[in-house]
Amino acid sequence: MGTSIKIGAKPFMNYINAVLMTLTSLNKTSVIIKARGKFTSRAIDIAQVVTKRYLNNSIKIEDISLGSYEFKANNRRSISTIDITLKRN
Amino acid sequence: MGTSIKIGAKPFMNYINAVLMTLTSLNKTSVIIKARGKFTSRAIDIAQVVTKRYLNNSIKIEDISLGSYEFKANNRRSISTIDITLKRN
Repeated sequence: MGTSIKIGAKPFMNYINAVLMTLTSLNKTSVIIKARGKFTSRAIDIAQVVTKRYLNNSIKIEDISLGSYEFKANNRRSISTIDITLKRN
Repeated sequence: MGTSIKIGAKPFMNYINAVLMTLTSLNKTSVIIKARGKFTSRAIDIAQVVTKRYLNNSIKIEDISLGSYEFKANNRRSISTIDITLKRN
């Protein structure tokens, strides 16, 4: 059971802090970054910054999965999603 | 040696067609969809549409890798990248 963080329009550093706080808490070793639609590119940015710039390279991308989410609007539309699992060594 | 298709600002269907034409050509079984920055979310959309709506579900996502690309501008900046490998069964 991993903690997940949903990426949206809040300031970038809010998400970075949330991810780092989760991964550095005692009883958690992984976190799932989730995003939909245009925020998927942001989720990738956040994963890159966390893995490359913080915690001495001790965080790795463990899994990436893509999906799509279907709207039940009058015209059926679907939106892409990404889940990035980060793990602390 | 896979063919790769770089995702940019052209019409969406151009990329869908390019991916499908590559995957249905005789001597290719895989294609790599590459994108940077804001186009990463588009690459995910394209992968989803190709795998879910075309060719009778015979195309699968084989691999996803994230990375970052560093600009050598006056202020050092980096931009996220995604490579999605699609494979035909």
